[in-house]
Amino acid sequence: MAISVETFFLNPDAQGTLQAQIQEMIAEGILSGRFRIGEKLPSSRKLASHLGISRITVTLAYTELLASDYLSSKGRSGYFVSTNAPVPPSYTPTQKTVDSVDWSRSLARTFTGGDTPHKPQDWRDYRYPFIYGQADASLFDHANWRLCALRALGHKDFSALANDQYDHDDPLLVEYIARHSLPRRGVIARPQEILITLGATNALWLTAQILLNRGRKAALEDPAYYTLRDQLVNTRCQFEGIPVDEDGLPPELISDDTDVIFTSPSHQSPTTTNMPMERRKALLKRARDINAVIVEDDYEFEMSFLDSPSPALKSLDQEGRVIYIGSFSKSLFPGLRLGYLVGSESFIRQARALRANVLRHPPGHMQRTVAYFLSLGHYDAQIRRIAKTLHGRRLVIEESIKQHGLTISGSGQFGGSSLWMKAPEGTNMDDVARKLRSGSVFLEPGAPFFAPATRKQNHYRLGYTSIPKSKIEAGIELIAKEIVKCNK
Amino acid sequence: MAISVETFFLNPDAQGTLQAQIQEMIAEGILSGRFRIGEKLPSSRKLASHLGISRITVTLAYTELLASDYLSSKGRSGYFVSTNAPVPPSYTPTQKTVDSVDWSRSLARTFTGGDTPHKPQDWRDYRYPFIYGQADASLFDHANWRLCALRALGHKDFSALANDQYDHDDPLLVEYIARHSLPRRGVIARPQEILITLGATNALWLTAQILLNRGRKAALEDPAYYTLRDQLVNTRCQFEGIPVDEDGLPPELISDDTDVIFTSPSHQSPTTTNMPMERRKALLKRARDINAVIVEDDYEFEMSFLDSPSPALKSLDQEGRVIYIGSFSKSLFPGLRLGYLVGSESFIRQARALRANVLRHPPGHMQRTVAYFLSLGHYDAQIRRIAKTLHGRRLVIEESIKQHGLTISGSGQFGGSSLWMKAPEGTNMDDVARKLRSGSVFLEPGAPFFAPATRKQNHYRLGYTSIPKSKIEAGIELIAKEIVKCNK
Repeated sequence: MAISVETFFLNPDAQGTLQAQIQEMIAEGILSGRFRIGEKLPSSRKLASHLGISRITVTLAYTELLASDYLSSKGRSGYFVSTNAPVPPSYTPTQKTVDSVDWSRSLARTFTGGDTPHKPQDWRDYRYPFIYGQADASLFDHANWRLCALRALGHKDFSALANDQYDHDDPLLVEYIARHSLPRRGVIARPQEILITLGATNALWLTAQILLNRGRKAALEDPAYYTLRDQLVNTRCQFEGIPVDEDGLPPELISDDTDVIFTSPSHQSPTTTNMPMERRKALLKRARDINAVIVEDDYEFEMSFLDSPSPALKSLDQEGRVIYIGSFSKSLFPGLRLGYLVGSESFIRQARALRANVLRHPPGHMQRTVAYFLSLGHYDAQIRRIAKTLHGRRLVIEESIKQHGLTISGSGQFGGSSLWMKAPEGTNMDDVARKLRSGSVFLEPGAPFFAPATRKQNHYRLGYTSIPKSKIEAGIELIAKEIVKCNK
Repeated sequence: MAISVETFFLNPDAQGTLQAQIQEMIAEGILSGRFRIGEKLPSSRKLASHLGISRITVTLAYTELLASDYLSSKGRSGYFVSTNAPVPPSYTPTQKTVDSVDWSRSLARTFTGGDTPHKPQDWRDYRYPFIYGQADASLFDHANWRLCALRALGHKDFSALANDQYDHDDPLLVEYIARHSLPRRGVIARPQEILITLGATNALWLTAQILLNRGRKAALEDPAYYTLRDQLVNTRCQFEGIPVDEDGLPPELISDDTDVIFTSPSHQSPTTTNMPMERRKALLKRARDINAVIVEDDYEFEMSFLDSPSPALKSLDQEGRVIYIGSFSKSLFPGLRLGYLVGSESFIRQARALRANVLRHPPGHMQRTVAYFLSLGHYDAQIRRIAKTLHGRRLVIEESIKQHGLTISGSGQFGGSSLWMKAPEGTNMDDVARKLRSGSVFLEPGAPFFAPATRKQNHYRLGYTSIPKSKIEAGIELIAKEIVKCNK
């Protein structure tokens, strides 16, 4: 690659001769890793004209750098960064500026330090990755996805989707969600009741921003999705964790002054419980009685390989009280960052305005690619394939757990992609997880799911989307041994 | 397409016989537009087994629907939605639910009704689209973009990028921004000082959230980007519009109690003014004296076809006081939704945590495609091509403006993609714009850029990214005539 002449500027406050400044600029570029071995420098004529200085000054600077072996010359073809030039220490240039701003004062709000655990980027290097929420690329219909992406990159689509869509979504995708995805959950919605989001996390965030503030109160399942808890903290609302039982969220425990109820009735996160029909009706009634809005996170209904999924809570809603959240992260892949929000038009209008203010709209080509993938039937084939594989893994993991004496706390009667586990009282699963990592086993401690006041250390989650069937048993055995060891 | 059996549910509270319920379900699907002419129904055996009812019930329902011509049968190959079936009125099914939630009470915050104007989706249908901020697809290197996208969709990249990246960015893209984009602005930054955002709008939003709250004060240029003003309103901070002059933001007018200064020094939005070096230094000094942070929106530096761009304000910053925002919306295309934030590590750490809480990360494949497009040199060729075309249009538009007696208020001495215009005092450009639309001329009235207190009605913006050179003169003539007409 040639180094562009435009990366050179003369600092109006710089000390020293012009020639020295040019030398320093080039040396700094090499030392900081911006210019790399073998890259070609601009010609002296070009650089001189760009900087508005005489050519001889540049030539002299280049000659000096030749002598110091920062540069080499190849006859008439110009100057290059020398193969003997100093190599920067893996791209961490020394910081030029001294940070003299007192950030502890300048930050009006901080967002680090919430409940969301730090997950490793290198989980794929683990031999036994019982991670949750990642895709198994081997199960994905990559060939057809590429074809759909190519179609969305075709001339006509490309030109239309390259534009700023303001606050609009891809109408094709919205239509397919309305016709294809929602009816499977018993939900009927018009396009103006649907908003595309950057994944379910973004849908939850938008909802929390619109429905909550300092003066409002939310009810949240306990345990629950930790990022949702962080989102609620950020709205500064009051919120209450309601302990779930074997049927999910108990409606009678929700306080009368609750404004918003967050729930994952079809597959409680993380306990995997499915709420029975009677309780769903009771929950809707409770919401009506106290005039609260329900936010339903229906994040994993596609993975129902053991039994038909129950219809969504939203399908029972006759009064626009339920806001429904769906996601393509589990059925397609999480790196896609696409989900959707379904609710009353008055609510969706606010969510659309907030989304436009925060990020405008999800990228058009991603939306169109999904629309094609859905409409050509690849999505259905995909879900069947994933479900079949997960079913196979599920049988093995349950058998291994039995064999090695571990305890399942919640298993998802319809299927799903994880098990909620319980180690003996007193086990600190953070410790166990840390120790297992050195044996190349990755699992998620359950503590971050619990509200701080009720935080339990002896739960953990075992995901099986990313571990091959053949490795499950050996992984479970290692976990079982480590738990025994920690309890000695 | 076959209609999936999974879209059928029995409502536990439904009235009437099972057979009637099935008929209603199918009819509703057809009437609402979910099931379409020619689509195949599940076999009676399959549907019966899915619903757990007897097959004869389903067969009887199908037979009834045959008789009423909702369905047709093709011998042994099954039942299909009949070609004579009622066609729904362009997909707006009657709303089943009655919205009994009082949204005026349930919404804790509303986001509609800000300064951001409603822009038409159909601007491409205008004969003279003087729209700003849209891409000219004919100037884009579509072929190479497709190749880069395909590469990012290849097996190895695809598998890696399909994953949830948690709060991380694509390291390839970050590296290229550090090595390639920022040095052109005289800025040197380490990877941990860079965050990828969903466009510059998202970068501004993240910054406002972190640096402002009810107790803080911001200074904003007046006029300024309207969405930024909406963002500041949403943080509930105090903010003050500082009238810009011919050199941009006057530092001496910034109040002593200001915490954050928002500016677009290299190409003021919307007046296109470039801030001279002396004032840049004065602005930095002013910020230091009052201990304020500066947010620099450097949204259009690539379009410098008349003169070299000045280095960014950030390039003069020796103390980490400037937060820098870049965007690929102007140099690639706005539908991409990618931009970046550069600042001190302490600040970027908070921005990263907030972004993760709101949306996790921008889609991986989009980031990687841009990284390839940059690294293969297509980006540079692309910018040269756009700049050349815009230069040609700029000459024509300036000539036409002169010829038809319109007045330029700001023209961007380095180039840019728009002109800031001024009609005679008393002209209401909202009215003019509305009238021009019926003559197929689109232009943007300037009022939304001004703070409400100082709002001027006689300014407007003429963008030339999306209008061919050959149409400019005729469009300008129509604008000139309409302005004259409105002033009679």
